[in-house]
Amino acid sequence: MLQVSQRGQNIPASPFRKMTPFADAAKRRGIKVHHLNIGQPDIETPPAVMAAVQQADIRVLEYSPSAGHLSYRRKLADYYQRASINVAAEDILVTTGGSEAILFALMCCLNPGDEMIVPEPFYGNYTAFAVAAGITLVPVTSYIEDGFALPPLADFEQVITPRTRAIMICNPNNPTGYVYSQAELLGVLALCHKHHLFLLSDEAYREFCYDSPYISALHLPDADEHVVLLDTISKRYSACGARIGAFVTKNKQLQEAALRFAQMRVSPPGLAQLLGEAATDLPESYFDLTKAEYQSRRDLLVARLRQMPGVVCPIPGGAFYVLCHLPVDDTDHFAQWLLETFDHKGETLMVSPAAGFYATPGLGRQQVRLAYVVNQDTINRAMDCLELALQQYPGRIGVATTPAEADVVNR
Amino acid sequence: MLQVSQRGQNIPASPFRKMTPFADAAKRRGIKVHHLNIGQPDIETPPAVMAAVQQADIRVLEYSPSAGHLSYRRKLADYYQRASINVAAEDILVTTGGSEAILFALMCCLNPGDEMIVPEPFYGNYTAFAVAAGITLVPVTSYIEDGFALPPLADFEQVITPRTRAIMICNPNNPTGYVYSQAELLGVLALCHKHHLFLLSDEAYREFCYDSPYISALHLPDADEHVVLLDTISKRYSACGARIGAFVTKNKQLQEAALRFAQMRVSPPGLAQLLGEAATDLPESYFDLTKAEYQSRRDLLVARLRQMPGVVCPIPGGAFYVLCHLPVDDTDHFAQWLLETFDHKGETLMVSPAAGFYATPGLGRQQVRLAYVVNQDTINRAMDCLELALQQYPGRIGVATTPAEADVVNR
Repeated sequence: MLQVSQRGQNIPASPFRKMTPFADAAKRRGIKVHHLNIGQPDIETPPAVMAAVQQADIRVLEYSPSAGHLSYRRKLADYYQRASINVAAEDILVTTGGSEAILFALMCCLNPGDEMIVPEPFYGNYTAFAVAAGITLVPVTSYIEDGFALPPLADFEQVITPRTRAIMICNPNNPTGYVYSQAELLGVLALCHKHHLFLLSDEAYREFCYDSPYISALHLPDADEHVVLLDTISKRYSACGARIGAFVTKNKQLQEAALRFAQMRVSPPGLAQLLGEAATDLPESYFDLTKAEYQSRRDLLVARLRQMPGVVCPIPGGAFYVLCHLPVDDTDHFAQWLLETFDHKGETLMVSPAAGFYATPGLGRQQVRLAYVVNQDTINRAMDCLELALQQYPGRIGVATTPAEADVVNR
Repeated sequence: MLQVSQRGQNIPASPFRKMTPFADAAKRRGIKVHHLNIGQPDIETPPAVMAAVQQADIRVLEYSPSAGHLSYRRKLADYYQRASINVAAEDILVTTGGSEAILFALMCCLNPGDEMIVPEPFYGNYTAFAVAAGITLVPVTSYIEDGFALPPLADFEQVITPRTRAIMICNPNNPTGYVYSQAELLGVLALCHKHHLFLLSDEAYREFCYDSPYISALHLPDADEHVVLLDTISKRYSACGARIGAFVTKNKQLQEAALRFAQMRVSPPGLAQLLGEAATDLPESYFDLTKAEYQSRRDLLVARLRQMPGVVCPIPGGAFYVLCHLPVDDTDHFAQWLLETFDHKGETLMVSPAAGFYATPGLGRQQVRLAYVVNQDTINRAMDCLELALQQYPGRIGVATTPAEADVVNR
């Protein structure tokens, strides 16, 4: 029989996109939908960066080198040096978005059937990358009561097997917004040393840390052989559609293997590399402004959420996400109900149900991720909707049944 | 021990790029190197198409839908309809270059360990894609004496096993330039029907057929469930650096599986999609001009090659490649010698040794691929170099030892 491969059947649909048909239907009914569901910033792509593409003199749009334009890789090295990450152009492979960096890392670090440990909740698409690479994701659970801090190292030790090859973290974390401390990172690295594991560190949100300085996995001592930074310009410069990322490692064998995967697809996007290169020339003040804007939004969003009875919301230290507990039966149903049934003065909001961020079945059913990628006025309107929706939703659960730790978390 | 995965070690370096260090060294010595080695056209990217990107009003460069912008997919459907390929927007997934379409097809049609039959010589990067997808490429050999026509169907039958899931063809062919006839395509499709196989058809060079009308795998009757077209705008519009391609199939289950792989990487390049969409608006006369230019180059290149004693050169009916036999011991050595040792008035040429296009060890050692992606003056200069080089090369083999079929081929 002619049939789709097993992996083609197993690969999950994006958890981010399954609510889209309901949002489209709401819009067709004339409802204004506030999108807090996806990490697509509303912040302007810097005009100077767009100009680098739009004013370029290009006669033939040629293949670039497989590793990316050398001029761009050199400027990326300068960018990392400014962030005290000691890498050179030869340690950097330009990829098609952070996504391709993730895929190359899984392909180069793990064989089919090997295992990678990831703290959950985690970026939902990791599951699909694992299917594509034929590897097994092994979750260790972080809890809202701890503000989604790194799970105890003993929890990692417990799931390490002879097939474990890597630990993957996202720092600052998507979807929790948690920023790992130096002590936590040193603990993970020590595990990697002890068990000969790679440490894949997704650092897409590096610049967006609000309460503590950022620590990269490549800031750690004796990390060079173990660490691969997975990076992207998508969030940093509000350029999600460019599809430019980077695979960064000082492990020469890994970098050479990744280059061979890169040669397979000949080159990363050419026009967007011009954009990425120009972005490295932005002044530091660009991040000051962007960060201040996100921080104000975070503070507003967290304050509004904490005023709602039964909502549990840690203060996320970075990225632009809040993962909070809602007093509802099931956030999949609630998210759909928000789009299908609810409106407040012709408006509603779209959220990401958190079950898609967990590998362990049953977890996250009362949590949603909210992205503060909209301005403060929109956040207020969306929170007005949410506040009312939580009062009207038929599957509402009594506030008394929310976690006893709520008071501790909402400290 | 911390080590690169087996597939990371197995994935081959691009056969196209291994001569690059020698070319760079030659250039540093002041030698002018004519690049006939890679399919990077010198033809201008149409200015109207570049303008679509450069004059676009973009405030935020957002993610596009995972399948690509709907407006682009609709225009692509129109483009295919004009080529008598009956597909709709829903049958088309926009990919990051033809490369991603190939990877998605292997992932969706085959499981790890499954087998795919490919006529050799074939596009060298197929080998890397097979490693990435964990599948086995099974070659059936086509011969220069037959002008690289499709091997007899019996040769395919002979290598079909219970693990065979697909046949892959490239039409017009890279690296041979051969254009498959309707009879050949019907034969392959019949095999696919008989043995329940997918037919992956790489049609990057569709517009460049010089001697006969082009026949797509999707022109064939009863092909819809079996065929995936793998496509790219790279060659068609001289836009290799854009990285825009397409995965086209009317098999709904396959298209849905491919979409889930596409959701994994969120979206294809955004800026380049604008370029691709504008390209669908080019008048048919664009292809008339481009095709006429390539045809003149082909005629010149073939004529020059056939004047050289011992060179065997079929007339390729399409694409922009010639795969020819040279009277030398080993074209790997010869190609390197051209760059390291030879020059004619300060000029030399870079060729692609053909061994990298064969899966069967030992084949192609006396063949090279030449890409006529340079203008006629450059072709003449490069052929002046080649003619002299074949007289001077120490590893030259007597003309008498060239295939007896040479006269037949050079008909």
